[in-house]
Parts: sequence; structure tokens; C-alpha cells
Amino acid sequence: MADVITPRATNYSQWYLDVVKQAGLADNSDVRGCMVIKPTGYALWEKMQRGLDRLFKDTGHVNAYFPLFIPLSYLAKEEQMAEGFAKECAVVTHYRLKAEPGKPLHVDPEAKLEEPLIVRPTSETIIWNTYKKWIQSYRDLPLLINQWANVVRWEMRTRLFLRTAEFLWQEGHTAHATAKEAEDETLQMVRVYQKFAEEFMAMPVLVGPKTEGQKFPGAVYTLCIEAMMQDGKALQAGTSHFLGQNFAKAFDVTFKDQNNKEEYAWATSWGVSTRLIGGLIMTHSDDNGLVLPPRLAPTHVVIVPLGKNDAERAPCIAAAEKLAAELRNLPRDEFFGYEPIAVKIDTMFDKQPGFRYAEYEVRGVPVRVEIGPKDIEKGACAVARRDVPGKDGKQFGIPLAGAAEYIHQLLRDIQSALYQRAQQRRDTRTVTAHTLDEFKDLFPDRDEHEDLPVEALKFVYAHWDGTRETEEWVQKHFKATIRCLPFDAPQEEGRCIFTGQPSKRQVVFARAY
Amino acid sequence: MADVITPRATNYSQWYLDVVKQAGLADNSDVRGCMVIKPTGYALWEKMQRGLDRLFKDTGHVNAYFPLFIPLSYLAKEEQMAEGFAKECAVVTHYRLKAEPGKPLHVDPEAKLEEPLIVRPTSETIIWNTYKKWIQSYRDLPLLINQWANVVRWEMRTRLFLRTAEFLWQEGHTAHATAKEAEDETLQMVRVYQKFAEEFMAMPVLVGPKTEGQKFPGAVYTLCIEAMMQDGKALQAGTSHFLGQNFAKAFDVTFKDQNNKEEYAWATSWGVSTRLIGGLIMTHSDDNGLVLPPRLAPTHVVIVPLGKNDAERAPCIAAAEKLAAELRNLPRDEFFGYEPIAVKIDTMFDKQPGFRYAEYEVRGVPVRVEIGPKDIEKGACAVARRDVPGKDGKQFGIPLAGAAEYIHQLLRDIQSALYQRAQQRRDTRTVTAHTLDEFKDLFPDRDEHEDLPVEALKFVYAHWDGTRETEEWVQKHFKATIRCLPFDAPQEEGRCIFTGQPSKRQVVFARAY
Repeated sequence: MADVITPRATNYSQWYLDVVKQAGLADNSDVRGCMVIKPTGYALWEKMQRGLDRLFKDTGHVNAYFPLFIPLSYLAKEEQMAEGFAKECAVVTHYRLKAEPGKPLHVDPEAKLEEPLIVRPTSETIIWNTYKKWIQSYRDLPLLINQWANVVRWEMRTRLFLRTAEFLWQEGHTAHATAKEAEDETLQMVRVYQKFAEEFMAMPVLVGPKTEGQKFPGAVYTLCIEAMMQDGKALQAGTSHFLGQNFAKAFDVTFKDQNNKEEYAWATSWGVSTRLIGGLIMTHSDDNGLVLPPRLAPTHVVIVPLGKNDAERAPCIAAAEKLAAELRNLPRDEFFGYEPIAVKIDTMFDKQPGFRYAEYEVRGVPVRVEIGPKDIEKGACAVARRDVPGKDGKQFGIPLAGAAEYIHQLLRDIQSALYQRAQQRRDTRTVTAHTLDEFKDLFPDRDEHEDLPVEALKFVYAHWDGTRETEEWVQKHFKATIRCLPFDAPQEEGRCIFTGQPSKRQVVFARAY
Repeated sequence: MADVITPRATNYSQWYLDVVKQAGLADNSDVRGCMVIKPTGYALWEKMQRGLDRLFKDTGHVNAYFPLFIPLSYLAKEEQMAEGFAKECAVVTHYRLKAEPGKPLHVDPEAKLEEPLIVRPTSETIIWNTYKKWIQSYRDLPLLINQWANVVRWEMRTRLFLRTAEFLWQEGHTAHATAKEAEDETLQMVRVYQKFAEEFMAMPVLVGPKTEGQKFPGAVYTLCIEAMMQDGKALQAGTSHFLGQNFAKAFDVTFKDQNNKEEYAWATSWGVSTRLIGGLIMTHSDDNGLVLPPRLAPTHVVIVPLGKNDAERAPCIAAAEKLAAELRNLPRDEFFGYEPIAVKIDTMFDKQPGFRYAEYEVRGVPVRVEIGPKDIEKGACAVARRDVPGKDGKQFGIPLAGAAEYIHQLLRDIQSALYQRAQQRRDTRTVTAHTLDEFKDLFPDRDEHEDLPVEALKFVYAHWDGTRETEEWVQKHFKATIRCLPFDAPQEEGRCIFTGQPSKRQVVFARAY
């Protein structure tokens, strides 16, 4: 029974792992905490990279590549960063192995590095050490650089895509002549992430600053996008940091301004990672498997020709090939990243149709076209949309003439429908707690409520006194954290529901991944 | 005088480093042996990735991602590989740092890994350890997977792009049911590399097997592409390995064939790296800086409007913008990877025209368009091609109406011209040595001939007795190695010029990077 996906209502965590596995997205590797991203998962990441990279370049950024290794002393230079990452650093201490007769291959004790090297957990330190050489004058600014790379943070409890020791990401690192420019950049990039989450991933997000307690080590402040997963838990999906002059000071990066005055440069950094794939799964997928928004789907359409024998199949295959060619030849447009519609023709005639349909359902192909002998007689086909499972999502009798245009529009409709469904879910599960009792009921102890339904958890707005103590108390007692101070939420004053102290505004609490 | 490029004839090595630096391609980092790939260099790598990735996908491959870390015991499982890479492995031994009051940040001795992890120098071992889980039946084969990744090989003597401790590359790893299929794949992929080198990089290559002494550790045999640099030295630009059942046996990867018989799988691996950027530079660039083939140029065309004052400049700028729009709107085609022609308009009006031209010459922009007030009067512009420096490469009076199409064609012409020039150079510097004396004269001792002209070194065909002893003797005495046994060379028998023993065919000797 390896092929069964645990229903979300039965065990949400297991459902997630089942979908990742059945859809062929990733595997745990034998290397502690590291994952293998399988071809389908990687194709999804490539689609994400393309979309994000376009948005970065459209906002004036260029890509570059910095070393994987960071000397320990660099990390030590920025105190918050050293504290924040010390406990999760993979450390290279030797540069050679030795194979001696009669002995197993081992680390050569003679080949010890003078200074240990950290495998980058994030690249601020190595990059600002480099920027020191690149920045002399205001004319060298702004520097608007992004890097696509792997990073390592030694995690003890890992989960595919969501938390792994090694992951893939992009990290933007910019340098500016003024605080205002750097702050504008910080805001611009979180808005780019919002755009990507909403328009490509069809995943609505809250946008706003993190609290002091939740900000990035080394940042003055952190802006984030936060999404709600189907189990009501929050996922931090992207962050953009205003770093002030912290790294410029740590690495002595100064420039001559227009008045020839020596100034420290202002910095931002911002990143999203393969974690987004986890967010995508938990936003849209269902008990039948993966559901993908068309803008990120590696395969947009699968065409399944039917028929009992070669004679019946031949015209169905011919019609499938004709439709596939029509779809591939549609004018390329921005929505699909100027790439052709990706079509696959299924040829597993030795399997039952139901098996063939299920195969592409599990893998989240947005549109399935069925062409059987009776369809051919009518010059038509059946078109099923993955986001609406079963009969409701299947239209019979779509004329083959014009089917390509119909499907092209349907893909856009699916993209919108997925977004709307996710937004509606989030909105109906977002509530306000006016008292501690209300808050308590919203964050029940899971050990006492094993059968807590998936729908139980919510995003909870509440007044908070602005102190780290209160935040930590809430976290300790309810396992809920302040996810974000959303830009779009009303800024009305009130009283903290935990301490009764004055509160400037409501913030959003949730349990989180 | 930081901006002067050392002429090739004066000091070829310094010329190379000057071009890398002045064109803004890469920097040495402060981390031993690791480079920083700067935005222009990375843009070039992105172009290469796009082109190669398309070729890989067109031949049925998909991308995936495997862990950066390899347990030491995996490497030990394949003996040749362990021997081949033991001396250049970066080793992770700890997973945590410790910050104690009053002490500097240091490696936490309590956090020692039970088994050291190697930072991948190549991924055969971790991938075949994974394939064990993926391969059970002949139905699971072939597995045609590629990975884009960073790898680390601890090099003592490094040179930007050509030899660095960390570099970026792709590595294909395929598994097959039969030796024949795997051998066909090995050949197919070296031909893909040849196609990329010749059609995208405009770099002619020899194609054929390496000798036993030069093959990849763990391979049954290695096929390669070898290019000649302008100094007559060879650059190994890509390799494709037939691995036989070596890795399947080391990692116990078996499958049930169609007769239900248990068999070990057959393997290939193949890779090219950021080293190609070094090869590209040394194939086409000149004493004025970088020269790029249009198919890989991040910017295809720079338009330089001229004029002494705003009144003169305005119509030139307008004409520049019109031409840029026309170029960007030309129909997208395969030659340019279905991307628009990349056009930049230069606006450094505070600099002299000569300075502005030189700036784009150094950076290798294939076509420069100049539009001055007099050109406007005539409805024309001047068009300079980077591959032919000076007056010979500049055409005046190109009508603005139709300039876009003219330039579009010119870009294709430049691509061909670069290839032809490189091919001619290689062919005229390829000779045959019939005797040891002839051979000696062709590989003079550089210490005795400090003023050896750049043109002196050649590709030298000679008969060789097929033994590793003779190969090593030649390497020791002449610093020349057997680069390849080219498929296209005549297979006529003869006598080894070093030992007089029978020889099956001539092979190609050269000094190499």
C-alpha cells in the first residue's frame, strides 16, 4: 500500500510527507538532515527560480557568486550574527584525506587548516568582506547583487523542504549610500516576494515587520511574508532585512560621499529558499496529491488518448498529437514566462484509464485532457482541471477545434481560482482575540486534544504590549509566536490581552513551521 | 595605470588575469583558492547554463539536486575515486561553534561528527548511494539525471576560472540496463559538449578518448573535448566518462532485467565547469580586452549616442532609443535562445567618445553603434564589430532604417567569424612530429627560452607506443601530455617516436592548462 496518501484529516504531517514522496519531489538522504531534490521537485524549483530571477532583474539586480567557505573570524566580526548562527555551523577543519596501506581512508591529521572554515549559513560576512574592495565612492553605489546558492544550517529536527541542514536559496545583498535608499530597497524586495507568492504561487501572504525577538541576527529590522498553511499554521516564506550600517562597520566598508566625506555604507539582505516548495504543497495540495498553480507547473497539460486496441487508439493519438502541437505553438506570453505550454502525451495503454488519471493527479498536472474513440466521433475531448477533483472539475464535449485556446484560458482560470480559494481559507480562519480566555481557546494544547481538526488553528489578531517578555511568555504557554505586524492591519491602540499594558496595535499570532 | 591590459606577446598569463579583471569577470577572494564570480562573469555563466541545459533537456535529461556532503566511507567504497580525490578533499569534522564569555568564537570540541563529511569533489558516490533506492527493475532505467552545483577540490596553485578550490559546474550521472546504452550515452554527451563548444562558444575542439593515464578516477574510459588556447596550450574543456559497473558494484545497485535476472547497472558521468569561461577568454579575447561570441554575450549591442550639448544629443538619443526598441522587438529565435537581443544605451556624456568605446571593448560587447549629429543628418549610424578592432571593423553610413536587421545579421556573422578564426589558428598550429628531434624542437624548455613567442606552442601529432611509461617519460621531459586520441585522426600504424615500438595510431601531444 505504498501508494496511499494519508488524508489530511487523519494526520496532516504524514499527508505532507506522503505527497512529497508520491509526487516524486524529494527524498531524505543518508546524509544527516540533507535532502535529495528529485527531478519533479527540482523542476518546480527551476520554475520558481525563473520567476524570481526575472523579478529581481526587473528591479535592477544582477547575479554573482561568492565563496562557499567563510573563515571563522569573519563570522565572529558581527556579534549578533555569530551568536545567531554559531550553533548550526558545519566546520571544515582539514583539507586532505590519507590512504595508507592497511589502513582505512582517514582524515590526514597533518592537513589541518590554520583557521577553520564555516560552510556558509548565509553570506553577509563574506560578501561585505568583498564589498570593502568594491566600494570606494558614492559612484560605486548602489550595489544590487543577488546570489543563487546552497547554504548549510545544522538542524537537529528536519522535515523535507521546510527545514533541512542543506537547502537551496537566493540571497540578495545590496549596499547603498543612504539609510533611506536601503530602507526603500528592503521594502521593495519584500513586495517582490509578495508579488511572487501571490501571482506565481497563488499563495496569499501577510506583509510587515517581524518583532525584535524574531528578527534576523545582525538586522536592524526584518520584513517578512507569512502564509497560512491548510492546517492553520504559519509559514515564514521570505524575509527582507534592513541591516543598517552593522556589516559596513564590522568589515570597515566606507565610501566618499558627494561632499567627499567618508561614510559607512548601508545594507540590506533578503532571501527565499526551497522552503517555498513546502509552502506551495501545504497551500494547494489535497488528499489526491499535489496541486500546482499553472505558472509554476513543470507540465501544464497531460493528454490521455484512450481506446481498447490499436485501431481505436490511432485516431485518439493523432488528435492528441495535433492538440499538443497547437498548445505548444500558442504565442508565448509573460504569464507563462515566455515559454511554450508544456504538454505531455500519456501512452500507458497497458494501464486502466483510472490509473493513468490518478498518476497525473498525484503529480499535480493542472489540466488533463481525455480523448477516447467516442470523443473522436464527436470531434471533441474531455477536459479535467486538477484543482477541482472529480466530476465537478471535468467538462465533456469540448470541441477539439478551439480546445487549445480553451485550455490556455483554463490554465489562467485555475491560477486565479487557487489564489482565491487560499485567500478565502485564510480570511475565514483569521480571527481576533479580545481576551486571554479567547486566546487560550484558539491555541489548545495539542497533547490534550489529539483529535484537533486540521481546521482548528487560526491566525489570531491580538493586542500586545510590545515587549519581548510577553512574546516569550506566549510562546512558552501556547507555542504561538508573533508572525508579523502586518502593514495592512488597522493601527488602533488598545490594551495587551496578556498584561493589560498599553498596546499600539494588534499583531498576528500563530503556531508556525 | 590600473586600466592597462598587458599585451599577450609580453606576458600571456598576465594578459589573461588583466582581461579577467578589467572586464569585471572575477576576483580572487580572501578565502584560499576560492574566487568571487562578479556580475559580468556570472552573466556569462548563466548564458552558458541556459545553452547547455537546453541541450541536456533536448537529449532527455532532467535536473535534480544531491547533498553537498559525502560521508567519508562512501568515498572509500570506490578505490580509484578515493585515491584520485583523497588529496584534495575539504573535510567537515564539526557541526557547531561556541561563543563563551571572554573567549573568541571557536569550534566546539563537543560537537565532533562521528563520521567526517567530505565537501563533494564530484558526486558519483552520493548519487549511486541514492540510485540504489531508485533502481529495482529495468523499468526504472535509464535514469538520465544532471545536477548544477558547486564542488570543492583543494588546489594549491589556483588561477581564476581555470583552477580554483571551489568551482561551479554541471555533472550528469546516468544509469543504464546495458553496457551499450551507457557507452552510447557517453559518446552522445561528449558530442553535446562538442556542439556547445563549437556552436555557442565558437571554440573548435578535438574529440576522443583520453589515455589510461589521463582518465577519470573510477572510469573505464574517458572521452573529452580539447581546445587550443591562443598560446598553443591545450585546455580540457569537458569530459564524459563510461564508468562500467564500477559504481553499481561499489554501491550494490542491481536491477531485475527483462528475464528477471539480477544485474548490476551501467553508469556514465559527464561534466563541464566555470573553467569554460577561462577557455572562452583565451580563445577569442585580444589585447583590448574581452571578445565574446554573440550567442553567449550578456549584452549584444551597445548604442552610443554622441553630441557636444543637449541640443545635439537629443536627436541622437531618440534615434538610439528607437533602434534599441527595434532590436529588442525582433522575432525571438533559437540562435539567441528565444531571448530578446540585449541592448544597452550608453549615457556617459561626461566622458570622451574614445573612453566610452574602450569601455565596451574591454567588456567584449560584440557590436557597438555610434550615432552622432552628422549621422542623424544622413539618417545613418556607424556600426563597429568587436571581433575586428579598429577601422577595419567599423562601417559608416549604415541607414538607421534597416539597421536593426543589419545588426541582427552581423551578430550571426561575428559568431561564424570567431569560430573560423579559432579553427584556422588551431589548424595552422597543429603539426606532426616524425622523430624525437622534431618533437624536441616543438616543445622547447621555457626556462631556456624566456622569450618564447606566444605562437610557438603547437598541437603535435606523433606515434606513441600506447604505454603509460612512455607517456610519463614525455611528460617529465617535455611537460607535454597526450591530450586525446582524436576520433577524426587517421588510424594508421607506425612506430613510436620515443621508443621505436609499434604504434597503432598517432595521438595529440600538447602542453596543457
